[in-house]
Amino acid sequence: MTQMDLARRGTVSPQVRFVAEKEGVDVDFILSGLAEGKIIVPSNINHKNLTQPCGIGKGLRTKINANIGTSPDFCDLETELRKLQTAIAAGADTVMDLSTGGDICAIRKAIMDASNVPVGTVPVYQAGVEAIERHGAIVNMTVEEIFRAIEEQAKDGVDFMTVHCGVTLASLARLKKQGRVTDIVSRGGAFLIAWMLHNDRENPLYQYYDRLLDLAKRYDFALSLGDGLRPGSLADATDRAQVEELIILGELVDQARQAGVQAMVEGPGHLPLDQIATNVQLEKSICRGAPFYVLGPLVTDVGAGYDHITAAIGGAIAAAYGADFLCYVTPTEHLSLPSIEDVKEGVIASRLAAHAADIVKGVKGARDWDEQMSRARKALDWETQARLSLDPELCRKIHSKIPPKGKTCSMCGKYCAMAIVEKYLGISATRC
Amino acid sequence: MTQMDLARRGTVSPQVRFVAEKEGVDVDFILSGLAEGKIIVPSNINHKNLTQPCGIGKGLRTKINANIGTSPDFCDLETELRKLQTAIAAGADTVMDLSTGGDICAIRKAIMDASNVPVGTVPVYQAGVEAIERHGAIVNMTVEEIFRAIEEQAKDGVDFMTVHCGVTLASLARLKKQGRVTDIVSRGGAFLIAWMLHNDRENPLYQYYDRLLDLAKRYDFALSLGDGLRPGSLADATDRAQVEELIILGELVDQARQAGVQAMVEGPGHLPLDQIATNVQLEKSICRGAPFYVLGPLVTDVGAGYDHITAAIGGAIAAAYGADFLCYVTPTEHLSLPSIEDVKEGVIASRLAAHAADIVKGVKGARDWDEQMSRARKALDWETQARLSLDPELCRKIHSKIPPKGKTCSMCGKYCAMAIVEKYLGISATRC
Repeated sequence: MTQMDLARRGTVSPQVRFVAEKEGVDVDFILSGLAEGKIIVPSNINHKNLTQPCGIGKGLRTKINANIGTSPDFCDLETELRKLQTAIAAGADTVMDLSTGGDICAIRKAIMDASNVPVGTVPVYQAGVEAIERHGAIVNMTVEEIFRAIEEQAKDGVDFMTVHCGVTLASLARLKKQGRVTDIVSRGGAFLIAWMLHNDRENPLYQYYDRLLDLAKRYDFALSLGDGLRPGSLADATDRAQVEELIILGELVDQARQAGVQAMVEGPGHLPLDQIATNVQLEKSICRGAPFYVLGPLVTDVGAGYDHITAAIGGAIAAAYGADFLCYVTPTEHLSLPSIEDVKEGVIASRLAAHAADIVKGVKGARDWDEQMSRARKALDWETQARLSLDPELCRKIHSKIPPKGKTCSMCGKYCAMAIVEKYLGISATRC
Repeated sequence: MTQMDLARRGTVSPQVRFVAEKEGVDVDFILSGLAEGKIIVPSNINHKNLTQPCGIGKGLRTKINANIGTSPDFCDLETELRKLQTAIAAGADTVMDLSTGGDICAIRKAIMDASNVPVGTVPVYQAGVEAIERHGAIVNMTVEEIFRAIEEQAKDGVDFMTVHCGVTLASLARLKKQGRVTDIVSRGGAFLIAWMLHNDRENPLYQYYDRLLDLAKRYDFALSLGDGLRPGSLADATDRAQVEELIILGELVDQARQAGVQAMVEGPGHLPLDQIATNVQLEKSICRGAPFYVLGPLVTDVGAGYDHITAAIGGAIAAAYGADFLCYVTPTEHLSLPSIEDVKEGVIASRLAAHAADIVKGVKGARDWDEQMSRARKALDWETQARLSLDPELCRKIHSKIPPKGKTCSMCGKYCAMAIVEKYLGISATRC
């Protein structure tokens, strides 16, 4: 039985108990969200070392995913395992292994073994990469090979899988009729579209969606219904192809729920700031409150080198309007595979965005954290400030970079407003 | 005659012509904005090397300010001059010299000499620092000394000055009655409040506002009506003290306009994400469309070490709702005086935020930039992408960090969606 089935019967699984405790909410709140499909708790029955599951969805803290994994141009298992540990240490709630270079099955198994947080994948990468090895081209992969990759990954314990089921002949027709500046920027989407057009066949993940649901049900991995047609530039945002795909994904969410399979929906991508609220509302409406997992959104196309910031802007707004899960973006997005340091930067930028949103979402404890920090700041208590920050070590390092001559920091030194006010007014913190 | 006086007579100054050309708008648009007080063009008649003036306000590109300057704990002119050049090179539209350490007059003169962009200051810093030297305490500074500092800085060519005129006995009474978590975090505000309470006197910048207007008129420096009571924590945001001060600033904007003096209004500070729109609307309404200059806003208190990102989130939203001018925040905010590298990080984060807002504000050329970038991305044209980025050198460095084996980047390598789509579909960029 899946987490969703259990919740519908009122059974509290260890995962649900853990999530409820961590969020500081009642187990019944998690159960009813799971039963409705508005909360998911990705936890494959075979992911034995998943000691840190998380709930994603309505009323819960906004979660963060970090993408790691090799590419054909850079492939080193040790580096990827260090990225995994770095991401978890920096506060990522989940990781996705997007490896496409080297022995991707061995890499995935090693990441699964080392990860105590939920792991996601995009199984069509494996199917596509193997098709090149076996048949010389992605377009030659067979339907069986696609499902074999999914099942193999499910057996390995993958907790959620991106499946681009909404890339169909119909949504593709809309795309072609309309035209775009950046066409398709989803790698998995591109694999499938190439296959569909070359073979003149429907997307197997759509055509045989029941088969996918059977596997998801058996291993209880969550579906992350991918947006293969997500906009890769502001010019393409919220266009007919994107919305057509979203409608299809909404229908597939219904089917997943009927089957007792956990599902969330992926979203953009590149969006102008003033289209973010619309996109969240569209997803929540069309997909009947399914958890929304956004990549960014990136609020400009020109941020290369600093796209962790571009994504933090969009992510904070998306989450404030109701997005549940932010996929981080690193400073190297659009340019290169991220390094270990980039992974850390990406996770922290996303956490800032998520927390800024959680404050206004009214997530339990979010505001308290800020108030504690501000009281420590007012008290010029630097160690407490560092401890409460997202990166205590960095805070201590910056604070001591220019050694402060007194109790204050080197920015204002003896002219610190906090210190002056304390000395002359003594009106401190009357609002206790 | 000030830029405002000239505009009201329909005279096109060289500064106005320059600004109109740079923005790609008609000179009449700038003139009418200046005449109404909804646009300012800070340009002191004595700032001889101001070759890059800028317009701030309605319908114009969102501008960025970078704060530089010494503190008692770190004081090195050479470093500050390098920060100035770094800020300008990274795209700052203005700089503020906030020096409080060392020979602050000499430092200011050196910065003025070296800056071809408008320079702002907070003259009460000079008055306060000198009062400590002369009289042993800030609270012993005389009214004459405050105005002498203002006049000296005006003579040096300072283009805009932060003056905390809205910190009055009335607004302070509101603050004390209410209480706060972080009381006062404005350094200039703290100087004045200490002085007012110690001497039991009204704020001289409010009481003798006419005298300030006379000086502003004579040298045509713009007033940046400072928010000495800005919230320093989310808990204090949009409280009665802050709004009381804003009301007073609104009245002072009217007086400035009557006198032909350019004025803008400063704003928070720390604000929860869902209070940003309200704050912009309040300022625009209460201050009758005066340009709004915000510090951040910071959407959480816990971002120390990464507050350039916290501020980019808030700044993008503020500017999208109508804020005109973003004061950058560096990664060392709340912890230390920024280094040269921090200055660059701060400027770029702010520029990203400003541009994301300009796209939705409909600023001329903003969307075109993104579309050009996306077309270069689609074409896998890496040099054009670097050239169009905010930091071309960094983009080239990241792209070559993991040497790509083909035309693509190392993130996806041969599995690049752009390349696959190009190869299999050829539906590229039908929307030309």
